[in-house]
Amino acid sequence: MSRKISVAAAQVGAINLNASKKETVQRLIKLLHEAAEKKVQLVVFPECTLTTFFPRHFIQSQEDLDHYFEHGEDITQSADVKPLFDEAKAHGVDIVLGYAERTPDGTGYNTSVYFSASQGKVISKYRKVHLPGRVEPFEDPNATNQLEKRYFKPGDLGFKAFRAPGLVPDAAKKSTAKEGENTAGKGDPIMGMLICNDRRWPEAWRVYTLQGAELLMFGYNTGGHMSHLWGGTSLPPEQAEKKALFHSRLVQQANSYMNACFSISSARCGMDDGKYHLIGGSSIVSPEGHVVAEARTNGDELVVAEIDLSECRRGKERTFDYARHRRIETYSLITQQTGVVEPELL
Amino acid sequence: MSRKISVAAAQVGAINLNASKKETVQRLIKLLHEAAEKKVQLVVFPECTLTTFFPRHFIQSQEDLDHYFEHGEDITQSADVKPLFDEAKAHGVDIVLGYAERTPDGTGYNTSVYFSASQGKVISKYRKVHLPGRVEPFEDPNATNQLEKRYFKPGDLGFKAFRAPGLVPDAAKKSTAKEGENTAGKGDPIMGMLICNDRRWPEAWRVYTLQGAELLMFGYNTGGHMSHLWGGTSLPPEQAEKKALFHSRLVQQANSYMNACFSISSARCGMDDGKYHLIGGSSIVSPEGHVVAEARTNGDELVVAEIDLSECRRGKERTFDYARHRRIETYSLITQQTGVVEPELL
Repeated sequence: MSRKISVAAAQVGAINLNASKKETVQRLIKLLHEAAEKKVQLVVFPECTLTTFFPRHFIQSQEDLDHYFEHGEDITQSADVKPLFDEAKAHGVDIVLGYAERTPDGTGYNTSVYFSASQGKVISKYRKVHLPGRVEPFEDPNATNQLEKRYFKPGDLGFKAFRAPGLVPDAAKKSTAKEGENTAGKGDPIMGMLICNDRRWPEAWRVYTLQGAELLMFGYNTGGHMSHLWGGTSLPPEQAEKKALFHSRLVQQANSYMNACFSISSARCGMDDGKYHLIGGSSIVSPEGHVVAEARTNGDELVVAEIDLSECRRGKERTFDYARHRRIETYSLITQQTGVVEPELL
Repeated sequence: MSRKISVAAAQVGAINLNASKKETVQRLIKLLHEAAEKKVQLVVFPECTLTTFFPRHFIQSQEDLDHYFEHGEDITQSADVKPLFDEAKAHGVDIVLGYAERTPDGTGYNTSVYFSASQGKVISKYRKVHLPGRVEPFEDPNATNQLEKRYFKPGDLGFKAFRAPGLVPDAAKKSTAKEGENTAGKGDPIMGMLICNDRRWPEAWRVYTLQGAELLMFGYNTGGHMSHLWGGTSLPPEQAEKKALFHSRLVQQANSYMNACFSISSARCGMDDGKYHLIGGSSIVSPEGHVVAEARTNGDELVVAEIDLSECRRGKERTFDYARHRRIETYSLITQQTGVVEPELL
């Protein structure tokens, strides 16, 4: 049974502080059109794709800040962004889009949605759980801030896996499954979304694959040259970029392998405003942890691969057959305590 | 404050089915002496170090099987093995040793102990939690078995981190700590043991580092050329070995990084009985996920590095500051369900 789908990471290069959302959405549509031409079925756009990565700035005016957020109940109806969803539907391409969300009660979330072209609507929403950074800006005016904990609340939707319809032609359906039939790995693909820093937290991947996820998708804004400002080290730019790329790739490969799932990562990258550098490295990784496609540039670029979701079965049925091998009675600290409790001094 | 310690993985090459434990222990002592000469303070020996990796054989006679296990209450008094502990104490070198343990009630465990030279005794014991393989042998008489689930029970001691005394000269002690002093990262090193397959399970690493672990240590017996027999694939020998080494290294590097801890891995490797191949690749990995020392051979070899445990602080206080970033309310599936529960078919 074929479970092959054609997927892409749509990497997006520099977006300056003064860029208009309309212009940026036009760049996304261009990538979408390229995907459609290449018969890609699913495109993953980065984290907070619609503007520059504003948490690096300490923005004190609520009005200024609000500009970076989408405010409506339904992102597909957001005036500046609607053309992207319309094009996705018209071309029959599913998309994952990351954006800053402001709810009616004023709460900010770092959000991504899965838009199903065949359904013509958003079928899953995820809000970033692992917010990095700080609430307060640095005192040093030259330091690059990371104020996600100031502008966003941790996601309140958990890690909810979902099935994406319309991608695998002969997927088993409730209406056609025989009574008692084991349809595991035969239905519509099971997916989950992460955002940026979430990828460094194995708990997030595990919760998704405990629901059978075969494909995890995430965008990121990850400092390269600038990481020495965030991190307090003083690595030369090339080394700082190399290090950030190494860690990003390492956690994607290892977590894909340890969870026997494919993953697609999509970078907001390049040099924003001529001075804030973000790494590229968008990639598609197999359940064996191998990179099957990766970005070659540090700008707008579509990274395409055909992946066969049935390749997940091998890991899920052998080395990572959770039912046979996991021992939850030994894991209780993971959900019992948030921080570290060290053994007593001797 | 110096938190530097000198550590080593003592990789052990081929051990045939008919090798005597006495001879094997002499090989371990030779590695220990080399460590002592090099002023190494802690040596990590592999998993089930004392015999060939017997779970690859279907052994039906209890008497034959018992030969591969240690039976006493105290491994340091086990006649064949006592000389190793005596030498460790005499030379002031701590050791981690993996062995097959038979308890008085007849239960088998895949066990490792931490022997503290300064204390002159075992100060921590770990029993492997994630047993790979099967209970029943393969029907194909040419297939290489992996019968750990037959010969061992899953470990019943959990993942209990411990402090190892005597390694860091100026470690804070209960008696000298000031009232209210934050001694995190200043006491004796906090450690934990894993065994082989455990290293592929991020839950195991996390439970240890939720207790502040700075150094995780594990031995392994991992099929290389033979993995095509275990796994049902038919990779050529070189590719099979390369793949096994890739996965072993990948999970060690990523989990060390995501847990901001050092790790030492020690392989039982080489070609047992001229036909059962096990990978080498023993290594010492930093909290940034970098390999700081690694084996060059596929035989008996000491892999040495001086590591500074204070390097863990950077990760533990920033990217992986659990108290600030973990969101346990979203992790509940990890301890609520062992196996996979897929979303319903649409």
